[in-house]
Amino acid sequence: MDYINNYIEENKERFLDELFGLIKIPSISSLSEHKGDMYKAAEYWKKTLLEAGADKAEIFETEGNPVTYGEKIIDPSLPTVMVYSHMDVMPVDPLDLWTTPPFEPEIRDGKIWARGADDDKGQGMMHAKAFELMVKTNTLPCNVKFMIEGEEEIGSPNLGKWCEQNKEMLKSDVILVSDTSMIAPDIPSITTGLRGLAYWQVEVTGPNKDLHSGLFGGTVANPINVLCNMINQMVDENGKVTIPGFYDDVLEVSSEERELLAKAPFNEEEYKKAIDVEELAGEKGYSPSERTGIRPSFDVCGIWGGYTGEGAKTVLPSKAFAKVSSRLVPNQDHEKIAQLFKEHFESIAPKPVKVEVTSLHGGQGYVCPIGIPAYQAAEKAYTDVFGKRPVPVRSGGSIPIISTFEEVLGVKSVLMGFGLESDAIHSPNENYPLEQFFNGIKTIPLFYKYFAEMNK
Amino acid sequence: MDYINNYIEENKERFLDELFGLIKIPSISSLSEHKGDMYKAAEYWKKTLLEAGADKAEIFETEGNPVTYGEKIIDPSLPTVMVYSHMDVMPVDPLDLWTTPPFEPEIRDGKIWARGADDDKGQGMMHAKAFELMVKTNTLPCNVKFMIEGEEEIGSPNLGKWCEQNKEMLKSDVILVSDTSMIAPDIPSITTGLRGLAYWQVEVTGPNKDLHSGLFGGTVANPINVLCNMINQMVDENGKVTIPGFYDDVLEVSSEERELLAKAPFNEEEYKKAIDVEELAGEKGYSPSERTGIRPSFDVCGIWGGYTGEGAKTVLPSKAFAKVSSRLVPNQDHEKIAQLFKEHFESIAPKPVKVEVTSLHGGQGYVCPIGIPAYQAAEKAYTDVFGKRPVPVRSGGSIPIISTFEEVLGVKSVLMGFGLESDAIHSPNENYPLEQFFNGIKTIPLFYKYFAEMNK
Repeated sequence: MDYINNYIEENKERFLDELFGLIKIPSISSLSEHKGDMYKAAEYWKKTLLEAGADKAEIFETEGNPVTYGEKIIDPSLPTVMVYSHMDVMPVDPLDLWTTPPFEPEIRDGKIWARGADDDKGQGMMHAKAFELMVKTNTLPCNVKFMIEGEEEIGSPNLGKWCEQNKEMLKSDVILVSDTSMIAPDIPSITTGLRGLAYWQVEVTGPNKDLHSGLFGGTVANPINVLCNMINQMVDENGKVTIPGFYDDVLEVSSEERELLAKAPFNEEEYKKAIDVEELAGEKGYSPSERTGIRPSFDVCGIWGGYTGEGAKTVLPSKAFAKVSSRLVPNQDHEKIAQLFKEHFESIAPKPVKVEVTSLHGGQGYVCPIGIPAYQAAEKAYTDVFGKRPVPVRSGGSIPIISTFEEVLGVKSVLMGFGLESDAIHSPNENYPLEQFFNGIKTIPLFYKYFAEMNK
Repeated sequence: MDYINNYIEENKERFLDELFGLIKIPSISSLSEHKGDMYKAAEYWKKTLLEAGADKAEIFETEGNPVTYGEKIIDPSLPTVMVYSHMDVMPVDPLDLWTTPPFEPEIRDGKIWARGADDDKGQGMMHAKAFELMVKTNTLPCNVKFMIEGEEEIGSPNLGKWCEQNKEMLKSDVILVSDTSMIAPDIPSITTGLRGLAYWQVEVTGPNKDLHSGLFGGTVANPINVLCNMINQMVDENGKVTIPGFYDDVLEVSSEERELLAKAPFNEEEYKKAIDVEELAGEKGYSPSERTGIRPSFDVCGIWGGYTGEGAKTVLPSKAFAKVSSRLVPNQDHEKIAQLFKEHFESIAPKPVKVEVTSLHGGQGYVCPIGIPAYQAAEKAYTDVFGKRPVPVRSGGSIPIISTFEEVLGVKSVLMGFGLESDAIHSPNENYPLEQFFNGIKTIPLFYKYFAEMNK
């Protein structure tokens, strides 16, 4: 592993500079005013791949944000690894909770602080730098392809179609994705399952204009009260989602597998302390890890309506809105669930209001079997770097495109994540420990090595 | 009545100009950035009263916004009428729903369109112009005092204390208030009851930061889901407020009085059509007018939390907020209710969240007996101008300060309102028909005439 450690040691400052350059581009995919930044990020990735040693790199247009694709084909008879990452990031509000500005990366306490430091600019850049390392040290044992998209955080609405249109170019034997986390710096783990996602916006309309809450209060249905009532009906007192048919396709996980999953360390007291809650919540009959790993959930991501300014305004508002989402487990179809919710939510609307449900995005869940060679190569690489065999875990998060890759390209993905739970992805003060960044760059070339050996 | 009609005819353009000057001052009391506008409005009222014929007019400081006081004492042995109005207005959001800008008054279709056109600049200005009319035509039969405050829309937090400190100066036999509405232009009515008000802000805190809804969804209580659940518990399926003790002090109105109240015309189909709802809602066992007139209500005036921007952001938010209020009926004490709600709402908070309730403002309800001379003088004045005896009605709205006047000054108020339900007060496109404005100016001098005669 000396050639790996030496190359990293000699180039680490430059690696960080290059990552910071990418982070400084505020490529927020859900806000249309950042459209131009998506192109800047795509150009930055193109330059990064070419400088790292790609034969070619190109920016592809889609109906949405661009995709940067690059490749180095050393021998068509060798196996091909495709790296997937995304250049887009989440919005940054509430801004006032950030210690330093989200797009001005800073190193403090051994961590990089910025939006995208982990998700997924930091983790994506590890692959670019590991690729460069293998090229410059003449140790690249396979062909490599990079596919960097710009819409992961909004559910990859155009990448599936783009894959469909570029199937031949994207042919590969495995897809590597670093967009998940490990249990702890000293407890390596590899994510073997992801939840799917359905996401809706709902709009409840009562009277056709805001009314005086005194003159009308008591006689006209208040759309906020109604929305609260309707949302409240979505989950029962046992934490079960009440949408008819919601659980129909959920595969009950066997008690044997539940026992295995329970072996992943979980300290409930520390978990609660980290987020400062006195008690956890959720579906009865399942452990906290099971509730995020193998069970679907229902959350309101946002709600608004009426007067939300300073002081007191007495108003009976005309409208109330919410953004709601469900995390789904493998075998639950997001389109079916999207439809079930829409029908159910509209059906329970009381007569004095009008309700409209719009599906905003969705994606399927995913499972990676631990018996496939690519998983085993990853397992060996982690063991070499972290000194321990990684634990397979089911994550509660969603990367909807992963199941699309399997469907469209027929290729399994291995989720070699190096993030930590404390990285605060999607939140203010996102961060990424330098140690995880550099350990990632060490682990990746070893994966290539073992994967190539297994395919000989 | 010729002297009245003639004077109005000769001066109507100027009356409107003077009203427009007042409307153009954006005196929104709930927004601190408009503090300066409150002083501009107070100066405007001072000038208006002096020009109308007041002996003196003065701006008084309070701990909050100023009060403009003016008077004309023609003979200390004659009765004294005090006019109460307010110079402050409600916020104007959502701005995009206004056809013309809220602080640029315009006349269209025989109505004045602007924030404050009715509530209460339009209705207040009627009194100034009626006073001017009596002074200039030498028909003023009583002493007159004007008390114009700047905090009515935020619950008059400082006027009670100011009345306390100026009791001697404010001595009067009746208080005239035009801050309510009539049933229809051809169905005059006088408001004999007002509801009280309690208004709170609630804050629900779950985790100490926004979390990734995938990694945590299903295991951590979502404060928006919890807030919806808690709000939903406040009103039961029969439309009854569930706060323990809430109805304890509500006086059940006798079936005889309910029969009388039912005589006020109410067309449910037209009412529903005007606000475009298919069905009304509210407490079972009471008619729509009773639900706003003699029964308390519970409404959410605003709600917010999590991601409310464009597109989809998957987040399990840290906090959720709501502004909630109850309209109370006479004999319910707003301070007691404020406390009951706070205790109840905090007590039902589930363990995984923290809940904080802040009381933002409140006021007592009010009843004006129809047997007192001042009511009868008003009744005669309306009958002369509108050709029909006015109907006494109980309004759902609140003017918290009215009960304070009775408590502190020992004087009853007569609510000579000339607004219409279609005036959209507190809403976008507030308006006030010119006919109501000028009929108000005609009615008021007749009240003075009859009231002085009765007191001879």
